[in-house]
Amino acid sequence: MASRLANLGANPTAAVTHDGKEYNTFTEPPVALAQERAKAKFPVRELTYYLDGGEENTKKIEEMMLDIERNPIFSMDDQYDLPMEKNREITMQRVGVLSQYVQAAPEFESLKRFSIVGLIDASTTTRTGVHFGLFFGAVRSSGTNEQLAYWVSKGAGTLRRFFGCFCMTELGHGSNVAGMETTATFDKKTDEFVIHTPHVAATKWWIGGAAHTATHTVCYARLIVDGKDYGVKNFVVPLRDTEDWSLKPGIAVGDIGKKMGRDGIDNGWVQFTHVRIPRQYMLMRYTKVDSEGNVTQPPLDQLSYGALIGGRVSMAVDSSLWAARFLTIATRYAAVRRQFSSTPGEPESKILDYKFHQRRLIPRLAYTFAMRAGSEKLLQFHSKAMENMLNVDKNDKTALNSAIEDMKELFSLSAGLKAFSTWGTAEIIDQCRQSCGGHGYSGYNGFGQGYNDWVVQCTWEGDNNILCLSAGRALIQAGLSARKGGKVGDAASYITRSQELASKKLNGRDIRDPKVLVEAFESASARGINRAVDRYLELTEKKGLNQTQAFEELSQLRFEIARVHTRTYLIRSFFASVEAAKDSIKPVLSDLATLFALWSLEADSAQFLVSGYLSPDDIPQITTLVDEYNGKVREQVIPIIDAFNLSDFFINAPIGQYDGNAYKHYFDKVVRRNPNRESRAPYHERLVKPFMQRPEEEDDEDLEELVED
Amino acid sequence: MASRLANLGANPTAAVTHDGKEYNTFTEPPVALAQERAKAKFPVRELTYYLDGGEENTKKIEEMMLDIERNPIFSMDDQYDLPMEKNREITMQRVGVLSQYVQAAPEFESLKRFSIVGLIDASTTTRTGVHFGLFFGAVRSSGTNEQLAYWVSKGAGTLRRFFGCFCMTELGHGSNVAGMETTATFDKKTDEFVIHTPHVAATKWWIGGAAHTATHTVCYARLIVDGKDYGVKNFVVPLRDTEDWSLKPGIAVGDIGKKMGRDGIDNGWVQFTHVRIPRQYMLMRYTKVDSEGNVTQPPLDQLSYGALIGGRVSMAVDSSLWAARFLTIATRYAAVRRQFSSTPGEPESKILDYKFHQRRLIPRLAYTFAMRAGSEKLLQFHSKAMENMLNVDKNDKTALNSAIEDMKELFSLSAGLKAFSTWGTAEIIDQCRQSCGGHGYSGYNGFGQGYNDWVVQCTWEGDNNILCLSAGRALIQAGLSARKGGKVGDAASYITRSQELASKKLNGRDIRDPKVLVEAFESASARGINRAVDRYLELTEKKGLNQTQAFEELSQLRFEIARVHTRTYLIRSFFASVEAAKDSIKPVLSDLATLFALWSLEADSAQFLVSGYLSPDDIPQITTLVDEYNGKVREQVIPIIDAFNLSDFFINAPIGQYDGNAYKHYFDKVVRRNPNRESRAPYHERLVKPFMQRPEEEDDEDLEELVED
Repeated sequence: MASRLANLGANPTAAVTHDGKEYNTFTEPPVALAQERAKAKFPVRELTYYLDGGEENTKKIEEMMLDIERNPIFSMDDQYDLPMEKNREITMQRVGVLSQYVQAAPEFESLKRFSIVGLIDASTTTRTGVHFGLFFGAVRSSGTNEQLAYWVSKGAGTLRRFFGCFCMTELGHGSNVAGMETTATFDKKTDEFVIHTPHVAATKWWIGGAAHTATHTVCYARLIVDGKDYGVKNFVVPLRDTEDWSLKPGIAVGDIGKKMGRDGIDNGWVQFTHVRIPRQYMLMRYTKVDSEGNVTQPPLDQLSYGALIGGRVSMAVDSSLWAARFLTIATRYAAVRRQFSSTPGEPESKILDYKFHQRRLIPRLAYTFAMRAGSEKLLQFHSKAMENMLNVDKNDKTALNSAIEDMKELFSLSAGLKAFSTWGTAEIIDQCRQSCGGHGYSGYNGFGQGYNDWVVQCTWEGDNNILCLSAGRALIQAGLSARKGGKVGDAASYITRSQELASKKLNGRDIRDPKVLVEAFESASARGINRAVDRYLELTEKKGLNQTQAFEELSQLRFEIARVHTRTYLIRSFFASVEAAKDSIKPVLSDLATLFALWSLEADSAQFLVSGYLSPDDIPQITTLVDEYNGKVREQVIPIIDAFNLSDFFINAPIGQYDGNAYKHYFDKVVRRNPNRESRAPYHERLVKPFMQRPEEEDDEDLEELVED
Repeated sequence: MASRLANLGANPTAAVTHDGKEYNTFTEPPVALAQERAKAKFPVRELTYYLDGGEENTKKIEEMMLDIERNPIFSMDDQYDLPMEKNREITMQRVGVLSQYVQAAPEFESLKRFSIVGLIDASTTTRTGVHFGLFFGAVRSSGTNEQLAYWVSKGAGTLRRFFGCFCMTELGHGSNVAGMETTATFDKKTDEFVIHTPHVAATKWWIGGAAHTATHTVCYARLIVDGKDYGVKNFVVPLRDTEDWSLKPGIAVGDIGKKMGRDGIDNGWVQFTHVRIPRQYMLMRYTKVDSEGNVTQPPLDQLSYGALIGGRVSMAVDSSLWAARFLTIATRYAAVRRQFSSTPGEPESKILDYKFHQRRLIPRLAYTFAMRAGSEKLLQFHSKAMENMLNVDKNDKTALNSAIEDMKELFSLSAGLKAFSTWGTAEIIDQCRQSCGGHGYSGYNGFGQGYNDWVVQCTWEGDNNILCLSAGRALIQAGLSARKGGKVGDAASYITRSQELASKKLNGRDIRDPKVLVEAFESASARGINRAVDRYLELTEKKGLNQTQAFEELSQLRFEIARVHTRTYLIRSFFASVEAAKDSIKPVLSDLATLFALWSLEADSAQFLVSGYLSPDDIPQITTLVDEYNGKVREQVIPIIDAFNLSDFFINAPIGQYDGNAYKHYFDKVVRRNPNRESRAPYHERLVKPFMQRPEEEDDEDLEELVED
């Protein structure tokens, strides 16, 4: 192989010299990347600290990364070639490693470790997360303290003779959790619940861990007591014997098989046929059933909101991490890939130097920073709100209401951020792949698997479209509340300034001014919300529609206002975080933030034209500015990408490695993963040869004589 | 299994009745779909004839489909579970079948058969197409008649002891074909060419068939004679012995391995080390080299344009076919999937009845019809132009110029249509997948493999972005020509009416009028092109930029005008084909065409606002109309989908089958493909058990005494 990797001869377009040396397509890339790196005008390390939330975090993250990188169980060389069965096996080994850190580490570290492992192996994080996040999270948030202690004593805290899964989704019901059809019928005589799948469409579906691993599940089922349906509650149901892993009586499971991605997870389906569990296995922090069949329900639904939000917040956080990985690959490649020459006698141009290529990558780099800033702010809000919720004095009405208002805002804000960030990152992965041309389509540069693993984020734990519609509904409700002088949460507080914002126009001010850019988006967003509120009132008060009908009628508008509000939130969060950053990195961050806002403005220009904030004459200037900022950021783009601080191990793409030796690493990887000394197909003798060496068909001269005319 | 599929009991939300019967999530879907189907207000068969281009075509296509469906080699049940090695093997078997039809059938049938097979198995079509389309196509278009006859006599017409591949792309060069670095140096002494790979980055890359199958290749290499570089030409190079498939001396091949999709193709890399071929193996229809080393070059480059265009035209045609497949799945599923109830006591609503869900599917259905109309028109233009080109009298200057003008228009039109149609279909597949929620992520409903197989179309045979930029350049050139009173091809002929179009406004006319909609797009497109021409002239005449620099400066604008021009072409083609359709299907087609144009207008409203064609007050009306047309089309949507006439075999997705029995077929398929009588993982004893049954770690009480404080 070494000889193949060597330089086999001079460039035939030999007249081309570069920096005084003969230019060579194969050997030049690392030189080019080093030159790009040397252009840094800011302390790269400082930008890493900014991204990680401080030097201490960076150090912790680097320690975790090193630990993973060195662990042979996490060897990633064959990751893109694993057939499903092997993938699941390796995933199980990694679950064994990852799970041992969960208990030991504080929350920040646990979450970070999950994120980091997920970046290179999404299946492992999900398969571990099914137990610790979904099963254990449900027991903790919906069970009593005694129930939590009980299940921990059974092994739920350490994965000893215990692996929990999460039976929520059914074949026939996903988004509408309240419509699940599995039943949990109370049998007073035996003090048990009978869990039952009434028909095939009520089969639990997509259940991670169910096919082969899980011993227990949290099952969502309709509580039926004395023939009365109390709606969907949570029940712990044992699935397998913890000694020999055989199925418990009445439990049927199957393997869901092939998925678009995340094939390392043993997703399964589960049917319950009159399965009996002790009454005490129902999680009773909120609704309670006593042995007499008396049902007590909690006064406030909102108290159980919190459980699902954590997942959404994580997805918003992971969005910028994944985007950073694929942008690192595509941007480094663009800095060494040359195609077409503009000046005779010079090497071809780097594709990164084409304005159109900059358009494809650089605004999305800015977007990634914006997602980082926005999700960081959301994460802090989430911690605060969850803590308030858990500790609130339920007799203090004011405190309770304020906690509930926070939860509502958290619910709608996280819905919008989860949806648009996961979509944004899916689009970024796809764009990055395309920007690498054919090499983006190779399995070994990670884009295919990355996309396939990522996009489920747009569907699970709240389908993005449904989330947007519910965020849009919350914004209309906030708008209605604001009109009555009610309180509006922080993220949408600009609604209360609607009137003032409505009269704003650019009016010749500098569009690059952060204040102007934030104002532009706040005014557009407030205007959209107000229009939706007007239409809502018209539909309900004049046209006699009920709430549900009116909201249904306003679907498209709800989606749009959620979209613009989320974008506004990102722009504001990004500028705020730039403001708080160290001086040494402020200029580069400020360019990125301004670019992000201008690019957003350009893409959404229709609504600024409709509102009159912009006039048609402003538009060409904005496009020119986007090009200009792309050019500015391009000069520093390799140092910026370096600041993401993802090692080659976490990039796992030969064309995107740190040293820029793209063609060498890529060729090397392809040869290493496909060692074929045999130039024939494995099926050559059986299939290729008989077909390719079949004899010629001869003209059948006898045919004409076969039957007389 | 049968018992699992049976109805296991009553619906727990038992109060719900539907059409007088108790509602059941599992058994209701086929009933619901039959009801949708019964709503047809037009002759579905007639719409199929429209889509296929006439009754006779429909019958031919149905015959081909039946033939494929019945052939056990094309059994598709395990298609989504095939590991790469098995996939390649089955693909080779299918190549054997498909290739036997190529010679026998006229062009229409060959192309249709390739398209149809590609719809369910893209690898087979590509792997066969590598020989018949790329290799054989290159020999036919770039070789002399004698050369063609020679290679046919060697087996190139029938795949007997002959399989051709196509060595164009190199590791370091894709889009810039002229920059390829492989050399073909003429050796006068032996009357041979020496084919050589100068360094690793010049390795031929992505070569379909090279890893295991191909015996010969058409190789793109720089013609070097007496030290002079004549640029890239085509050479036939033998790769393997046709008896035992061993590699010829100097040929190194390797397997490219894992790709994002199309894993049934044995893509390989090829390096040539001083490989000698007879001079006569250079394809010499245009450039010729005689035995003395005299090189004669053709007067007109454009004469060799044609070869690559056929592939682009096919991709534009296939775009609507693939979109039809995935829309069939998503729309039928949406018509039987219910989620959330709006009226108590009624079943939940069909997701197809939600306005927002209609927004996701129905305009894309209209888009698919538009792509069909546009690609059909392109196909006809292509046939005519190619025929003219081949038969033109080269001494008739006028005829020659006209043929060349046609080729230029064909080049830029096919570039734009290929790019936006392949992107459009990628987006449609993705949207359709998401609209099926989690079930879209299952491997068995085909979206994952469909997307992964499809998206390479956006990259190969002309990267979409590069194609758009070149189409944009052609439009600027057409604009320049129009200003000088020159001729402009048919598709962009509206440029000559720029001045008249510039003054147009909606002015209260009915926006649903096809004439108004076409005018709106023609005016926007003409305006964009004119603005680009103005800027081009400013840059070249006032700012002193050369052509290349000016075009580079205008990249974003070039992309935009290509986009709007292509959309304009689709809208005009669609309305024209509606005009020519039978009366019985005109109403439904007219709704689709109007919806497509309105939806396009809404998405692009910024430019109509900037131009003043629309005023801000027009916008809400357009959104309302889009919703209204979605609602109208929704009523007939199942019959419209049925008219695509794709059988369950070609859909290959249990949730999208004709009878609508989505949950039954899906559950059935998952169980059939994953028969697990064993509830433990195959690696249970080795991995799960030792980890899960590891003993508890005990507190190490001795530790404190180990070292004295």
